[in-house]
Amino acid sequence: MNTLDVRHYLLGLQGRIIAALEAEEGQPFATDGWTREPGGKLEGDGLSRLIEGGDLLERGGCNFSHVKGKTLPPSATQHRPELAGAPFEALGVSLVMHPRNPHVPTVHMNVRMFAALPAGLPPVTWFGGGMDLTPYYGVEDDARHFHRVNRDALAPFGPDKYPRFKMWCDEYFFLKHRNEPRGIGGVFFDDFAALGFEGSFSMMRAVGDAFISAYLPIVQRRRTTPYGEAERDFQAYRRGRYVEFNLVFDRGTLFGLQSGGRTESILMSMPPIVKWRYDWKPQAGTPEAKLYSDFLRPRDWLGEVAA
Amino acid sequence: MNTLDVRHYLLGLQGRIIAALEAEEGQPFATDGWTREPGGKLEGDGLSRLIEGGDLLERGGCNFSHVKGKTLPPSATQHRPELAGAPFEALGVSLVMHPRNPHVPTVHMNVRMFAALPAGLPPVTWFGGGMDLTPYYGVEDDARHFHRVNRDALAPFGPDKYPRFKMWCDEYFFLKHRNEPRGIGGVFFDDFAALGFEGSFSMMRAVGDAFISAYLPIVQRRRTTPYGEAERDFQAYRRGRYVEFNLVFDRGTLFGLQSGGRTESILMSMPPIVKWRYDWKPQAGTPEAKLYSDFLRPRDWLGEVAA
Repeated sequence: MNTLDVRHYLLGLQGRIIAALEAEEGQPFATDGWTREPGGKLEGDGLSRLIEGGDLLERGGCNFSHVKGKTLPPSATQHRPELAGAPFEALGVSLVMHPRNPHVPTVHMNVRMFAALPAGLPPVTWFGGGMDLTPYYGVEDDARHFHRVNRDALAPFGPDKYPRFKMWCDEYFFLKHRNEPRGIGGVFFDDFAALGFEGSFSMMRAVGDAFISAYLPIVQRRRTTPYGEAERDFQAYRRGRYVEFNLVFDRGTLFGLQSGGRTESILMSMPPIVKWRYDWKPQAGTPEAKLYSDFLRPRDWLGEVAA
Repeated sequence: MNTLDVRHYLLGLQGRIIAALEAEEGQPFATDGWTREPGGKLEGDGLSRLIEGGDLLERGGCNFSHVKGKTLPPSATQHRPELAGAPFEALGVSLVMHPRNPHVPTVHMNVRMFAALPAGLPPVTWFGGGMDLTPYYGVEDDARHFHRVNRDALAPFGPDKYPRFKMWCDEYFFLKHRNEPRGIGGVFFDDFAALGFEGSFSMMRAVGDAFISAYLPIVQRRRTTPYGEAERDFQAYRRGRYVEFNLVFDRGTLFGLQSGGRTESILMSMPPIVKWRYDWKPQAGTPEAKLYSDFLRPRDWLGEVAA
């Protein structure tokens, strides 16, 4: 295991993604670096890159963090109880972008490595990652494009990876209390070490490297679509689901908040403006109804995943 | 134990509170009743009373619910592990009101009874309740009034009750990831059976009955205070903390969502419009800074609670 290689990859990935988004936005992102000195619950460092009030991106952040902790929190070991409480090292890049135009979907991407260092046992390392898309006004071509880029990125690692990780994503980004998926999915994997350190790291890189080509073409196609107050209102309402998912269910968010992570960086995933209203349902036949009927259900976007 | 008496009390309390708020608002609340037929995870009924877009109350709800379930969810038994998984009965009234005017505080009140019915063991009944106030622009007189009404309501049940429940409230409504209280507190109690069924039920009633006189005078004093976009913006920002608390920490919310409760009723606690922004801090010397320095810290509002 070579944590330094992973760190270099992640910082480079963050730099490339932010450069691409800055070019699209036409203005620089802010930069906020931080360090946690040894002695507390967590030590380590991080680099937050963020934007608020952009023409394209109303709010968004891309965080790199690299921390060491004395005790793995429960959210990180629910599938590996034998590691509960062990010292750990965690590094990753996590990104959420909330565009202003309701025709441009919100996107999330995350790649990460964990190492648990249980006393008297060899280190246990695993990788995780994925990306998923949350449209307000869905476009089937965009959904297919997003999934196709992910499938192609994972193809070198075995034909099972995309179908498995696509289904895992559908299962993970699901609001149980709404019986509703967060969006049109993408790919998600966690606790992954099946290809050894080098192979698993390589697969994580393939996912990270695919982000720009998965998302940017969709941004470019939709960013000039006209919209009005009604579309903005629906976007603000739907963003409430994003908040609900991230604060109630998301393992990464809960891990961060429980382990004493940097709150403002973790909660960069929160949208800039959100609305809640009681028991609202779209009128039949509207574009808003189409989001629910055609996009917010698990679908085989590429026509090749087993049912 | 007589569940029917508790049910009658709770429905009456809901009716009285809504009548008082309707009179203050000058328009009726909506009514949404629901029933869950036996056979599923939960059975029972409920009555949601709610308002959206009022002149005074931008969004608010007061829910009565009475459910029976086959298996107590983990959030209800974290202090009583021997009851984990037992059938249960739960009844309560829960209320959150988000006023439009940022000078009127948000308020939460809840009274509830739980009965766990473990196989082969006698039923275990307990009561919980409380209320807490979340100002955006704090007023010391209002905070003292709110606490005084609660202290007086609890006085007949022993001199220890207000100080204990005041501290419990400060501990409970605390955002660990922000190191920040939700507001100026109030009282909170749970798992309470120390006065027997009748005495404990009576104490719960005293808290429920105190709500109108604890909150309404504050509404009446502050509802005509002028405000502008800056105050609305700060209110929307601070409401983000309310969302974070309720979705990450609140036992009642998590119990409801985990146990298959009615999502739209549970999430009536969500504010109508919320904003998040990165690492924002108020400027020194402003009324917004005063909220943090003078109100968002545990304080002995009545000058008689031991330090």
